[in-house]
Amino acid sequence: MKASQFFIATQKEAPADAEVVSHQLMMRAGMIKRLGAGIYNYMPMGLRVIRKVEAIIREEMGRAGAVEMLMPVVQPAELWQETGRFDKMGPELMRVKDRHGRDFIIQPTSEEVVTDVARQELRSYKQLPKNFYHIQTKFRDERRPRFGIMRGREFTMKDAYSFDRNPAAAAKSYETMFAAYKRIFDRFGLQYRAVAADTGAIGGDLSHEFQVIADTGEDAIVYCPTSDYAANIELAEAVALSSERGAATQALTKTATPGKSTCADVAVLLDLPLAQTVKSLVMATDEVNDKGDIVGSTVWLLLLRGDHDMNEVKVGKVEGLKGGFRFATLGEIEDHFGCKPGYLGPIGLKKPVKVIADRTVANMADFVCGANEPDFHLTGVNWGRDLPEPDLVADIRNVVAGDPSPDGQGVLAIQRGIEVGHVFYLGTKYSKAMNATFLDETGKPAHFEMGCYGIGVTRILGAAIEQAHDARGIVWPDAIAPFTVAICPIGYDRSADVKAAADALHDELQAAGIDVMLDDRGERPGAMFADWELIGVPHRVVLSDRGLKEGQLEYQGRRDAAATKVPTGEVAAFVKARLQA
Amino acid sequence: MKASQFFIATQKEAPADAEVVSHQLMMRAGMIKRLGAGIYNYMPMGLRVIRKVEAIIREEMGRAGAVEMLMPVVQPAELWQETGRFDKMGPELMRVKDRHGRDFIIQPTSEEVVTDVARQELRSYKQLPKNFYHIQTKFRDERRPRFGIMRGREFTMKDAYSFDRNPAAAAKSYETMFAAYKRIFDRFGLQYRAVAADTGAIGGDLSHEFQVIADTGEDAIVYCPTSDYAANIELAEAVALSSERGAATQALTKTATPGKSTCADVAVLLDLPLAQTVKSLVMATDEVNDKGDIVGSTVWLLLLRGDHDMNEVKVGKVEGLKGGFRFATLGEIEDHFGCKPGYLGPIGLKKPVKVIADRTVANMADFVCGANEPDFHLTGVNWGRDLPEPDLVADIRNVVAGDPSPDGQGVLAIQRGIEVGHVFYLGTKYSKAMNATFLDETGKPAHFEMGCYGIGVTRILGAAIEQAHDARGIVWPDAIAPFTVAICPIGYDRSADVKAAADALHDELQAAGIDVMLDDRGERPGAMFADWELIGVPHRVVLSDRGLKEGQLEYQGRRDAAATKVPTGEVAAFVKARLQA
Repeated sequence: MKASQFFIATQKEAPADAEVVSHQLMMRAGMIKRLGAGIYNYMPMGLRVIRKVEAIIREEMGRAGAVEMLMPVVQPAELWQETGRFDKMGPELMRVKDRHGRDFIIQPTSEEVVTDVARQELRSYKQLPKNFYHIQTKFRDERRPRFGIMRGREFTMKDAYSFDRNPAAAAKSYETMFAAYKRIFDRFGLQYRAVAADTGAIGGDLSHEFQVIADTGEDAIVYCPTSDYAANIELAEAVALSSERGAATQALTKTATPGKSTCADVAVLLDLPLAQTVKSLVMATDEVNDKGDIVGSTVWLLLLRGDHDMNEVKVGKVEGLKGGFRFATLGEIEDHFGCKPGYLGPIGLKKPVKVIADRTVANMADFVCGANEPDFHLTGVNWGRDLPEPDLVADIRNVVAGDPSPDGQGVLAIQRGIEVGHVFYLGTKYSKAMNATFLDETGKPAHFEMGCYGIGVTRILGAAIEQAHDARGIVWPDAIAPFTVAICPIGYDRSADVKAAADALHDELQAAGIDVMLDDRGERPGAMFADWELIGVPHRVVLSDRGLKEGQLEYQGRRDAAATKVPTGEVAAFVKARLQA
Repeated sequence: MKASQFFIATQKEAPADAEVVSHQLMMRAGMIKRLGAGIYNYMPMGLRVIRKVEAIIREEMGRAGAVEMLMPVVQPAELWQETGRFDKMGPELMRVKDRHGRDFIIQPTSEEVVTDVARQELRSYKQLPKNFYHIQTKFRDERRPRFGIMRGREFTMKDAYSFDRNPAAAAKSYETMFAAYKRIFDRFGLQYRAVAADTGAIGGDLSHEFQVIADTGEDAIVYCPTSDYAANIELAEAVALSSERGAATQALTKTATPGKSTCADVAVLLDLPLAQTVKSLVMATDEVNDKGDIVGSTVWLLLLRGDHDMNEVKVGKVEGLKGGFRFATLGEIEDHFGCKPGYLGPIGLKKPVKVIADRTVANMADFVCGANEPDFHLTGVNWGRDLPEPDLVADIRNVVAGDPSPDGQGVLAIQRGIEVGHVFYLGTKYSKAMNATFLDETGKPAHFEMGCYGIGVTRILGAAIEQAHDARGIVWPDAIAPFTVAICPIGYDRSADVKAAADALHDELQAAGIDVMLDDRGERPGAMFADWELIGVPHRVVLSDRGLKEGQLEYQGRRDAAATKVPTGEVAAFVKARLQA
């Protein structure tokens, strides 16, 4: 490919609304162009990356036995009504009426359509397992689209759906996809982690996110550097920080803490470690009758160590809170504690509440908590002596770096990641809702066991850039770079020798199957180099009259500090040797 | 590829709503699956054809210097309001509101978006010519979707848009695309014609449709077998069938023709050739004031030979009718002719009308027409003697087979076609509406000269099947067949020899870059052969134990009447030799 046959549209400045570096660099490199909020044109330079990402996905999905099809963007509402998602999903599901007033949706995913295909096409257990996937335009009407294509409204996703005869077979399909995803992300050349994720109401442990590591990532990834353990922050298990409760050594004492309504302030005032304090969070659950009216509420007191944060997903799994919970109202708090937030604690309640202690809190002794009296805290608090044992002990906090790994193999570390893939065991959620069955070995109808497997194709671009960039621009891995090698001839439009040598090298590399770009625009060297560094092409060869006279060209990898001189005749072999496998 | 890794879903019966053969065969071959009216899933077998069509298009578009990008499916209404199409387009433009109530459309084409890209990105004449294209999902909310994917609502289209500095350069871009389209359709292996088409308000002669020849096609293609002339029926010029008017030989006579209100009936009654009769069609145009109120109307009498049909497109180009016309009302007709339709004619009018004679009618003598009196016609009618010369003489009819070719090189023939591609010179229609300019050689802003170039990717599938099928199923050309070669082993699951030979042949052909399908399902021969004939794979190799013992396999091309025995060792070479270039 030559630049004159392509479209290069680099810019000096990123637009003001580009908040994150990947958005800024994609705009500057001319890879995307904004059309509306969260809606982008993929310019030729960006589309090349997408196509390479898609090609790798296709190859590995095919290798894993998945079959590609194409499901429509505009889907009839009827199917979405069968699963209830037409009504349940919020405004991020874009709804549209056709000329006859019939309801349709613009697909955000395709569970309903693929389940409809399966219930018609997969009639016998003999046709199973089957895994259908497509790579298609998706739309989610995000409330606040941002970060360029990282949280856009229209995007390209690969979504695959497996159909199996029983949970054991579904687990096997899941493992097959998990392995395929590892190959896919390995081939992208990105640093990533497959982390265990919450399975929600489905249960089990068959849910993993594929997170591209990046300091700017929105997600916290918990992992153990000395073992295989990896999970997202919602799921990562927090063990008790002491294996058993210490003995009481202090007397229960009410202490004035005027104006000190946070654990941190109290710890400073009393000159105690923050880890000696306990914070009180008050939640409520509602009992609802058949008509949907609230007929009663229960108040819950959650106790966490002062330096720990509540994990809402974990709280939502505690018995009694599974059906949904909310923060208690100020009225409920005053009614039960006789005190405003800031000085709450488990001792001296006006009305009984259910007390849930985090595992770590349950093993604390001589701790500090609110006195249920404004401007007072209690110190030297001890379970059993000063207050009854908690109603429940549960893991309700986020892990923090340094926590013991739940597998006992070391301590946990935390890094940031960007979720670009997700493999998930769906069970019979959709097949039951849509009564999608096959005839099993006994000739009886059985519901499909399903899994779904997504990769955010366009999101990969943003994640890759967040992971690897520098002051000069993007640093693509070879496998998904828009071009693998940029040939930059100095004086292409002036020197016949340079032109001949550049053309010959271009043809030689291209014939060798290398995706090469020859910059024949005749730009001056500085501008030309800056463009290809901004665009992030991983390998560059510079030709000049002087170099040719000396029998040398200059090679520089995008991550290299300096150029390497290479004898003219050896350049192709040198470049090939530098390409990542 | 092996069948066990793929998804084959043939059906014995087509659904009742499949009216045309391509729809029936695509459903039966398991290529598409209906999701809603005019909305289809592309099943794995159908998607393979789409991907092959797309690959050919991409290669040839790239060769012609067009650059691929990707424009969004959901597009902000603002751009469509700039060109007025948001309001002007009917309900086939699907409109949708986002969560904030802002208007969007689901793209039917992308002129607005690409022009918006160009006005921002193409700033100088030095960046021209430029041709951007994308292959993307389109939606048109057809009033009556039918014929499967031939007139679906959601479909895939390749649309390209060229930007040039002046009309001469735009014409060059047009020629480049025209040549690329010829290469594309040649490579598809389809019989097609590039036919001149109407340019509407743009004018000029830069509009061609690419029509796939098929007896079932909706469009009539006019061509001259002995010259290059080809045009669609709307455009094809109808010359006068006699070069000059004959002399009057008969007296004007009023003849009773009771109940004979059509030319055909009159000709039979009077025992005259139909070509001696003239039919009268009454049109009207309205004069409208600034407020849009109709302030006056003009009635037009169109005269056509009794065996000719009116061409509305041509009528719309006649001076005075260009602004739009309609059929006259019964009231207007009675008011001007004093007679109901069926016996109308140009003689003895109650009020003056504008008379337009088709070129052929203008040269007729002694003709027959209505007498403007119920149940009476006039015979022996002659221009000049019995009525004044027509106000206008124009080409207002469809050509018929046997008409002289307008290039004087022979006579015209007509065949049916299916429009699958269109190249069109747009001029400055969109660039002016959106004020899309570049700086020309003098440093002044100038509007882009544009062209647009579409190929209905999914429609190609239907058209190819309409063109080539038989009682057993589809007959694909090699280039776009879902698989090029089907290996059908008899007893794959029973005979180790058959399995080994089939696997070896599969691997050999695959290694040679041939798209081969090995049917390893273990189906009985009849069902297996029927499947691949229905699916339309162009080359088949059958292996059996008996054949292997004799050292022979059977090859049969999809169009061949019988199989050919081929020595085992020569099969690969034999198949390769049979592949279309």
